[in-house]
Amino acid sequence: MTDFVNYAARVLRRCDELAAFSEESGRLTRRFATPALWQAGEAVRGWMEAAGMTVRRDAVGNLIGRLGGGDRGTLLLGSHLDTVRDAGRYDGMLGVLVAIACLELLRDDERSLPYGVEVLAFADEEGVRFGTGYLGSSVVAGCFDAADLDRRDADGVTLADAVRASGGDPDGLVSSRRDPADLIGYYEVHIEQGPVLESGGTALGVVTAIAGQTGGRIVFAGQAGHAGTVPMALRRDALAAAAEFVTAVEALARDQAGVVATIGDLEVERGARNVIPGRVVLSLDVRHASDSVRESVLTELRERAGAIARARGVEVQWQVATGVGAVDTSPGLTELLAEAVAASGHPVVRLPSGAGHDAVMISRIAPIAMLFVRCAGGISHHPAESVNLEDVAAAIEASTRFLQLVG
Amino acid sequence: MTDFVNYAARVLRRCDELAAFSEESGRLTRRFATPALWQAGEAVRGWMEAAGMTVRRDAVGNLIGRLGGGDRGTLLLGSHLDTVRDAGRYDGMLGVLVAIACLELLRDDERSLPYGVEVLAFADEEGVRFGTGYLGSSVVAGCFDAADLDRRDADGVTLADAVRASGGDPDGLVSSRRDPADLIGYYEVHIEQGPVLESGGTALGVVTAIAGQTGGRIVFAGQAGHAGTVPMALRRDALAAAAEFVTAVEALARDQAGVVATIGDLEVERGARNVIPGRVVLSLDVRHASDSVRESVLTELRERAGAIARARGVEVQWQVATGVGAVDTSPGLTELLAEAVAASGHPVVRLPSGAGHDAVMISRIAPIAMLFVRCAGGISHHPAESVNLEDVAAAIEASTRFLQLVG
Repeated sequence: MTDFVNYAARVLRRCDELAAFSEESGRLTRRFATPALWQAGEAVRGWMEAAGMTVRRDAVGNLIGRLGGGDRGTLLLGSHLDTVRDAGRYDGMLGVLVAIACLELLRDDERSLPYGVEVLAFADEEGVRFGTGYLGSSVVAGCFDAADLDRRDADGVTLADAVRASGGDPDGLVSSRRDPADLIGYYEVHIEQGPVLESGGTALGVVTAIAGQTGGRIVFAGQAGHAGTVPMALRRDALAAAAEFVTAVEALARDQAGVVATIGDLEVERGARNVIPGRVVLSLDVRHASDSVRESVLTELRERAGAIARARGVEVQWQVATGVGAVDTSPGLTELLAEAVAASGHPVVRLPSGAGHDAVMISRIAPIAMLFVRCAGGISHHPAESVNLEDVAAAIEASTRFLQLVG
Repeated sequence: MTDFVNYAARVLRRCDELAAFSEESGRLTRRFATPALWQAGEAVRGWMEAAGMTVRRDAVGNLIGRLGGGDRGTLLLGSHLDTVRDAGRYDGMLGVLVAIACLELLRDDERSLPYGVEVLAFADEEGVRFGTGYLGSSVVAGCFDAADLDRRDADGVTLADAVRASGGDPDGLVSSRRDPADLIGYYEVHIEQGPVLESGGTALGVVTAIAGQTGGRIVFAGQAGHAGTVPMALRRDALAAAAEFVTAVEALARDQAGVVATIGDLEVERGARNVIPGRVVLSLDVRHASDSVRESVLTELRERAGAIARARGVEVQWQVATGVGAVDTSPGLTELLAEAVAASGHPVVRLPSGAGHDAVMISRIAPIAMLFVRCAGGISHHPAESVNLEDVAAAIEASTRFLQLVG
């Protein structure tokens, strides 16, 4: 029997090796079109080639390793190689390296797949440098917006120049869509980035959907005043209104299964101990796997904000955009994945993804499936990001079975 | 009959004249020991001398104008000439100029008082430059702390050097206590700095006490997390805890007559739309005219903070100092003041002061009385600070009657 743990140990070693490619010494930061990202890509290229793949970079710098071919179609596997600032070493990289490990394992076991495989290592998912989330996968999906070429990073470098400087072709971004004709699907392994698997005591999660999300900004405007001289009954305290709204957001989200709603930031303008807050700005983030549930939650929250403001004689400004719709994973591929997880001896836990992933973009051109791997404390986007060896072994086993079931 | 409105118009003209003495062009900022404060003092000196007073400056730069004498004691009148940054023109100055106007009026009417009067124009009440609130009156009250001589302003100048540069005597600050032996009391006229008189439709307020106040800082520490991936039930959201506390503070203060409690500032550490807040720091300010009420409110708030934190699995740090005790105005003088207000044809509205005043310090050496004058919108510490002519006339009439009743 194949020792999945050995392959998992190799994946973790490679995660450590990639973590050394950073823009900053002492911590991992690897943004789009930087030398650090290029070097990480070259290391991955080496592993891909050693696994028998033919490797190329596309116009935006995504690394694409191809194995096999013929007329039975192509399955895409992948995730991203860029990171946030002061990042962990698994978010993104784990999916690329588990994909390569599965192909190594099949080759070592002298089993081949009846279809072609392409491992995609996307050049930008986090969007830290240019504010372009999913940039790598958007090029593959044919969704790149040419207007983004003029975006500038913090140093004033345009996206077009950054692509050029890193060996890409800015003029090719719009036309680099992967032809979907031969695509069987897209499969991505990713750390959960949340605590659900850990709290349930399971290694793996089968993703049912990637939640839609709405973000925005809400302003409560009351009347500043002296904290000592304005009696409670005469106040129009913007923070008291905002606080009532924060508790309402939490209560409403707790009431509806699967909804997450977050006030992640709140600023008291000219806040001071002895001044009644006159203006408070807060952020809002609402997610759910069903767009209609998310929209109804937002409608209710807007009504609550209005009611709170009216009752307190303060103004409310509701600056909340439409948001991004939810994406369901493919029922067919997802059933195969659940079967593979069960055959590997793990309970089948199904859960939506509250975070976005490259799979969102690739869903425009192919059916998608995703497997989550338990991560310690649900922590991500932080150096403390951690997975354990057995869980990675479980992911490799389930993924290998999945690849064979797809065939 | 004396035309109080003419005297009031003169007071308002003088407020305008003093507003021209500023450290900054285009707005009024007049901190301790600045040329602007000196110039304002010299203008006041001129009006004092014209009113027949003998004028001197004490060691810290307070201006003291004396009128009359004999063995029937001395009544102190006064307020301060320094301002906050971008200040209004009445907070402080009104009390000094109304006092002078009353003495002018009595002289013009050929009425004299049977006791001596000293008008004090304090050099620093706001404490903007050195963080020394009540500096001027603390010297008169014998409460100056010599350790404060080493305090430095934003430019690194020590308090001792600033006093010296403005013609004062740093070595004399500790020993400049006004001998209380002959003091009848201290009387201060001040804008209300709150909306109570305006909302009640009255010009004048008789101050019953200067509220005690407690300030502090409270920290809620939970667990940061991804806004998309951590289900509501698994969150330890520091902002949700803080918001529940903010609403509890408001509810508790509304429930207890005369209590004002304010969360004036709240900071979400590393706040971001897509991150569950891990740590929130907020300020607390609680005031009441009774120390025991204030203390019981604080005890209850501390228990509420603890209960909220426990129920949510977050930590709370309660960094709240003992605070400053309330100061009652003198029952005897305050009854005379109420009588004077009534005799002037105004309803007697009694209210505590939620803001601190020089009277707090002077209460250490003399019984105190205070009269509030309605100000537009309750606004102070802002260029929009405003009083109306009739209300100032009412204050002059009531104060003049008060001076005669004291006799």
